[in-house]
Amino acid sequence: MRDMQNVFHLAIPCKDLDEAYHFYVTQLGCKLARRYNDRITLDFFGDQIVCHLSTQIDETPKMYPRHFGITFRDKREFDNLLSLARQREMRFFQEPMTRFERKVEEHRAFFLIDPSNNLLEFKYYLDERMMY
Amino acid sequence: MRDMQNVFHLAIPCKDLDEAYHFYVTQLGCKLARRYNDRITLDFFGDQIVCHLSTQIDETPKMYPRHFGITFRDKREFDNLLSLARQREMRFFQEPMTRFERKVEEHRAFFLIDPSNNLLEFKYYLDERMMY
Amino acid sequence: MRDMQNVFHLAIPCKDLDEAYHFYVTQLGCKLARRYNDRITLDFFGDQIVCHLSTQIDETPKMYPRHFGITFRDKREFDNLLSLARQREMRFFQEPMTRFERKVEEHRAFFLIDPSNNLLEFKYYLDERMMY
Amino acid sequence: MRDMQNVFHLAIPCKDLDEAYHFYVTQLGCKLARRYNDRITLDFFGDQIVCHLSTQIDETPKMYPRHFGITFRDKREFDNLLSLARQREMRFFQEPMTRFERKVEEHRAFFLIDPSNNLLEFKYYLDERMMY
Amino acid sequence: MRDMQNVFHLAIPCKDLDEAYHFYVTQLGCKLARRYNDRITLDFFGDQIVCHLSTQIDETPKMYPRHFGITFRDKREFDNLLSLARQREMRFFQEPMTRFERKVEEHRAFFLIDPSNNLLEFKYYLDERMMY
Amino acid sequence: MRDMQNVFHLAIPCKDLDEAYHFYVTQLGCKLARRYNDRITLDFFGDQIVCHLSTQIDETPKMYPRHFGITFRDKREFDNLLSLARQREMRFFQEPMTRFERKVEEHRAFFLIDPSNNLLEFKYYLDERMMY
Amino acid sequence: MRDMQNVFHLAIPCKDLDEAYHFYVTQLGCKLARRYNDRITLDFFGDQIVCHLSTQIDETPKMYPRHFGITFRDKREFDNLLSLARQREMRFFQEPMTRFERKVEEHRAFFLIDPSNNLLEFKYYLDERMMY
Amino acid sequence: MRDMQNVFHLAIPCKDLDEAYHFYVTQLGCKLARRYNDRITLDFFGDQIVCHLSTQIDETPKMYPRHFGITFRDKREFDNLLSLARQREMRFFQEPMTRFERKVEEHRAFFLIDPSNNLLEFKYYLDERMMY
Repeated sequence: MRDMQNVFHLAIPCKDLDEAYHFYVTQLGCKLARRYNDRITLDFFGDQIVCHLSTQIDETPKMYPRHFGITFRDKREFDNLLSLARQREMRFFQEPMTRFERKVEEHRAFFLIDPSNNLLEFKYYLDERMMY
Repeated sequence: MRDMQNVFHLAIPCKDLDEAYHFYVTQLGCKLARRYNDRITLDFFGDQIVCHLSTQIDETPKMYPRHFGITFRDKREFDNLLSLARQREMRFFQEPMTRFERKVEEHRAFFLIDPSNNLLEFKYYLDERMMY
Repeated sequence: MRDMQNVFHLAIPCKDLDEAYHFYVTQLGCKLARRYNDRITLDFFGDQIVCHLSTQIDETPKMYPRHFGITFRDKREFDNLLSLARQREMRFFQEPMTRFERKVEEHRAFFLIDPSNNLLEFKYYLDERMMY
Repeated sequence: MRDMQNVFHLAIPCKDLDEAYHFYVTQLGCKLARRYNDRITLDFFGDQIVCHLSTQIDETPKMYPRHFGITFRDKREFDNLLSLARQREMRFFQEPMTRFERKVEEHRAFFLIDPSNNLLEFKYYLDERMMY
Repeated sequence: MRDMQNVFHLAIPCKDLDEAYHFYVTQLGCKLARRYNDRITLDFFGDQIVCHLSTQIDETPKMYPRHFGITFRDKREFDNLLSLARQREMRFFQEPMTRFERKVEEHRAFFLIDPSNNLLEFKYYLDERMMY
Repeated sequence: MRDMQNVFHLAIPCKDLDEAYHFYVTQLGCKLARRYNDRITLDFFGDQIVCHLSTQIDETPKMYPRHFGITFRDKREFDNLLSLARQREMRFFQEPMTRFERKVEEHRAFFLIDPSNNLLEFKYYLDERMMY
Repeated sequence: MRDMQNVFHLAIPCKDLDEAYHFYVTQLGCKLARRYNDRITLDFFGDQIVCHLSTQIDETPKMYPRHFGITFRDKREFDNLLSLARQREMRFFQEPMTRFERKVEEHRAFFLIDPSNNLLEFKYYLDERMMY
Repeated sequence: MRDMQNVFHLAIPCKDLDEAYHFYVTQLGCKLARRYNDRITLDFFGDQIVCHLSTQIDETPKMYPRHFGITFRDKREFDNLLSLARQREMRFFQEPMTRFERKVEEHRAFFLIDPSNNLLEFKYYLDERMMY
């Protein structure tokens, strides 16, 4: 388990702050913490994402080696998020799938893609010890 | 505050798994969760980092727009980590500095750089509400 | 102690959503959860404030009987907030004061006023049992 | 999530302290913390409500822009409270309803009205991330 | 450590409910949960005390074998309570004392007596493992 | 909710320490913390009971005004304890019963009696807010 | 309940560090904290195991008097671990069994054996109070 | 951090149950959970130790490869325990010492020895991340 009071932070490139706001706050339901001219900071499921205005956009995003997201302990949270992404017609980079089926590492996962081509992966493991 | 039981995960490129192991486990004191042929997974201060073997190494890393790390709630944890980085002669991309001095957002920060040129930032804010 | 997972919510009148956003998010450091045409919802120190567009603005606000805010358990949080209000030149309805001095109920308090004349009171009690 | 140790406080007008005591303590099951000549303070689901004797009673209460209450994380707590309000024949300002049906924001809610015409709203969201 | 969610309850005799209310709520700062004709129930430092109207009052109370109270983990809470008892001129059955001085079991303690001659003991141990 | 780190303590009379040990530790599954010549101290469901050797034994114990016990938040814990009392053929002073049926205060309860005629009541409320 | 922040540590003999790494990390899913020439340290379900290179290997291991392991509060964790051990074809010293059936102490347990003949026992009790 | 609700258990040999009781309960301040003819079970700082009657006593105990104990997060707990061991004149196998001085792994430690020659080590690390 992790410390409740610390925060993981991740800085990512963003080609347009309004687009990022729309994707992360209006659609994904994250909270806006601060807005500056060159970036917005977000409370992303309790951790922090900073979207920096940048021209370094990945034009051909692939699943590896870069993506980020949340592994949920509780399946209900995973399902709720999937349902939100469906209802709000967010863009899936990868539809929900099961990986390592019938293995200890079995988990459900799907990928979203933000307007600046950053990939977000959300997961749920049957055996919580495999979250790491 | 974030949920103790969920885990933030971040996948990053890595040119050599042994180097990554040395940097993250032996030096930085993270825990190795799993090792595969093409990646290692780490318990990074309670969240998860996955180092994927990749040729997409950033040859000219800059502070923005990509970096990641932990914002500590407790100054002691920040100081302990800085002391560890000094003692183990880790490579600083940016020496410790104070940003936004005398402002609400005032914080201490330093950057490390891993063997695959990923940048890690660790922070401590005087006012914990500014962590996001 | 209260349950971490529940949320207190308070709906208040607001004559201008941008003003409310400026006061609560940009200045006070709360997080914006959602924005609609007629209201914004805020993560206010972990609880929820909803600012509803309304013409029912109190033109002659008084300390009683209506105000709201947070009573902090930790003096540091109270002091940090006071310092934030000073630095960002927020409008005080009541400067910091000590009430019930030398009594069991002794506490420090100050009042801010938002652009729609809602009053916010922040407090810190020497004896935490007096928080209720 | 919010800090367990801090307390949200809300001061509201009240035309009669005994009536308020009856409504909040005897019926709603809140705890009385302190009683003064001009107010009572209550432990309201872990936060604090202060009922101040006042003549500023809203004679034509409407749902917006002013109301307050608790959003429960656990449906059982919401159902228990609804059942209590029924059994004790409390006055509903709004019968239980579902809002935003089939949307991410879907939630159940009902409104009670206290003897001084203050409105209390209690809610339960299917997706806990929508609580803010 | 004990479970936060369970409650220890203790029923004690009481010769007059108003006196008990005055002692436990007005003076000691406990919260009134419920009042019936023959008893009051109290949130006593998070546990429950029920004062039952009774004629079984102990006319010659002694420290042993019957008393109850709280052992605090944090010295500040003990000191705050002692200070409250002094300021509100509560009746001490035993002034603060140190027991088992220089031994592992060393602790500070004082006894109050309620209007129905029930004895309350509050303690603080230097070594928290001795709390049991 | 109560503080996990504080401990409620209750001192009760006991006519024989070995009998008390048998009842509380061997049968009821409490833990023995310390044994002195004139008393034993117990970790009783996370709180502390001290059994003092005494001649003040209540020869005609009645349910009121004196008894003590635990109100469980989780029905499973209540059922487990009832099952333990049955299996180990402990002496019931009052068989399990439902009180305040169909009322908000509805709860299940049973009473045990220890070898020194102290009465223990264990409860479970349908609505956890009624625990106080 | 135990303190989350403390760690139980156990040092055990090990005839080969790579074997121990394979058993504890690759198979059992524990995390490697540190590796030295003469030992490895492991995050074993949140506690610490240190495998010391040693020639003191027990050639005829028996269930008593030496073994160690985790007693789970949540049956799901016990079942997940059992499933992991099956899938990864770990060596059972004792197949899953029920002990003290129909008694208060009823629990499920199984034993694994590590490459250095240390015995690991994992348990789940129907009544959590019997975990000690 | 570890899960509060799980329990680490360790079974060790013991040549005499009364001696073990004296060492672990009377001197070390652990709690006795259960006593059988052939073993006692203990709440050892929140985890479980079982002392099994056995003839497999180690006549020439050495620090490695077998010992067990607690690593404390809070220095005060370490100091309290050391003070207890001194006052109660427990037998030290190794006086308090500092290991890895001026290194990241710097910690304080001492060893006790129980009547059956089992070694107990208690530790405190300056940098809590080194506890594993």
